[in-house]
Amino acid sequence: MNPVKIKSPATIANLVCGFDVLGLALNEPQDLMEVTLSEKPGIRIQHNDIYNLPTVPEQNVAGVALLELMQELDNAVGFDIIIEKHIKPGSGLGSSAASAAGVVVAANHLLGNIFSKEDLVRFAMAGEKLASGVKHADNISPCIYGGITLIRSIFPLDIIALPAPPMYVSVVHPQIEVKTSDAREILRKEVLLKDAIKQWGNIAGLVAGFMQNDYGLISRSLEDVIIEPVRSMLIPGFDEVKKRSMDAGALGGGIAGSGPSIFMLCKEENAAKKIEAIMKDIYNNMALAYHTYVTTINNKGITISQEL
Amino acid sequence: MNPVKIKSPATIANLVCGFDVLGLALNEPQDLMEVTLSEKPGIRIQHNDIYNLPTVPEQNVAGVALLELMQELDNAVGFDIIIEKHIKPGSGLGSSAASAAGVVVAANHLLGNIFSKEDLVRFAMAGEKLASGVKHADNISPCIYGGITLIRSIFPLDIIALPAPPMYVSVVHPQIEVKTSDAREILRKEVLLKDAIKQWGNIAGLVAGFMQNDYGLISRSLEDVIIEPVRSMLIPGFDEVKKRSMDAGALGGGIAGSGPSIFMLCKEENAAKKIEAIMKDIYNNMALAYHTYVTTINNKGITISQEL
Repeated sequence: MNPVKIKSPATIANLVCGFDVLGLALNEPQDLMEVTLSEKPGIRIQHNDIYNLPTVPEQNVAGVALLELMQELDNAVGFDIIIEKHIKPGSGLGSSAASAAGVVVAANHLLGNIFSKEDLVRFAMAGEKLASGVKHADNISPCIYGGITLIRSIFPLDIIALPAPPMYVSVVHPQIEVKTSDAREILRKEVLLKDAIKQWGNIAGLVAGFMQNDYGLISRSLEDVIIEPVRSMLIPGFDEVKKRSMDAGALGGGIAGSGPSIFMLCKEENAAKKIEAIMKDIYNNMALAYHTYVTTINNKGITISQEL
Repeated sequence: MNPVKIKSPATIANLVCGFDVLGLALNEPQDLMEVTLSEKPGIRIQHNDIYNLPTVPEQNVAGVALLELMQELDNAVGFDIIIEKHIKPGSGLGSSAASAAGVVVAANHLLGNIFSKEDLVRFAMAGEKLASGVKHADNISPCIYGGITLIRSIFPLDIIALPAPPMYVSVVHPQIEVKTSDAREILRKEVLLKDAIKQWGNIAGLVAGFMQNDYGLISRSLEDVIIEPVRSMLIPGFDEVKKRSMDAGALGGGIAGSGPSIFMLCKEENAAKKIEAIMKDIYNNMALAYHTYVTTINNKGITISQEL
């Protein structure tokens, strides 16, 4: 059978005030994958990158997602997978989601699109469980649906695609390690009701701002009084990046997923580039390795880039 | 000077998952007020109803709201007010908001519309502070703006009018007393993070559902895992009203403000009437006095009904 080549985008979960329920897909970076349907049962994974990720399917996020999908099939089929990661694992930019979602989207295409997008999110969540210990869909959903998605509920799964106006996204990935499981553990199990009220006022404002193309409302709503004050302590330079980005015209921003990447949303490309320069300046001064991106919202999600 | 006559609507604060930030205006019941601008300084209040509310301006919610407005005026003017309340105080249907908002809207009209709607909300909140001890705007805002409003923030004030599809509202007011201050005191100061996440997923879904005219999403999002489980214990019959209303086709519903009124949203008038009959049946069986309404969303807010 012929292979299918796909591009699977980086994603930003949480979006400041939407912890565990909002996510956004980026046009950069994107992973590349080549997936071939085979009559030979089983999953064979090759890596075409520097990250030395597991090739045993049961230990690989793409592998377990695909195993989850294959449980639904009547026929014994197999898949050969070549993964070329451009989204660095542990960046906070949805690297595991890109692998898990990418492979099930590719497999579904090869199988004649027998599964719904919602099915695919469900399969891919098995990969997230392997990566972080918890089934979550706030990277998987925007990766598959594109744009900005709300995951109102995981059990049962309820995904809502939210229209939004064009925005630029400046991202810096300071090359330090923040494990998702650690970032989750430092959160308090209880929060003040008054803070929770502020947070749900903000997420309601953010959703309304997206849907009404109201950049001012988006900006005012991009405030996180619960997670960011705790997690930002794990990211050197966070406060300075945020303060100087806001001064340079960012609408708002914060920690990408559980970090360490930091993102800033902008209305204008100019501001987004200025903010990238600020990010570089800050981590150059700290002599900390980093990578930056200036990109836009990816409204397509995973794309089939080439069929041979 | 000529008096102005206004109608000031009942409102439902919280809207299930939007505690302290969402509110909705109703077409029924509505208070009537007649306000006259006078050269004789001071505020003179008369009541044309059975509720025996205070007439001293400093002790009357309309009086303190109007005093707040008058502080902004350069000239010493006075107002004569006749209030005919149809929204029973303590019903949970925004009775104090209707008085406080009604009088400042009427006064602003008489003064040549010198204040913005936001200013008027700010003045009227003084009335809410007198009534419940806390400045809140989730009844005041829909009363003045009409429709459904989000109060993203009170300090600084940030009110967003949310478009929504047509809906019917069934309301029952069981004639028991639930003081707003008591209803606030029984709430825990801390909530579980996982419950807060559920709540902000729901409010995000509800806002998206309103703006996309998606009745299914509205229905799925009308869930309150934080306030209702505690407060509903203060309202006899609540669980039965809710269960039987949902079975009869309600989209969802819950406690109106801090209660004791209960409201149910419906897509169809038939269902709303069936639910009213269910509400009557339940409180007849409990031998508890009650009042019911079947009404719609009031998109105009306070209206000037007649100028003499």
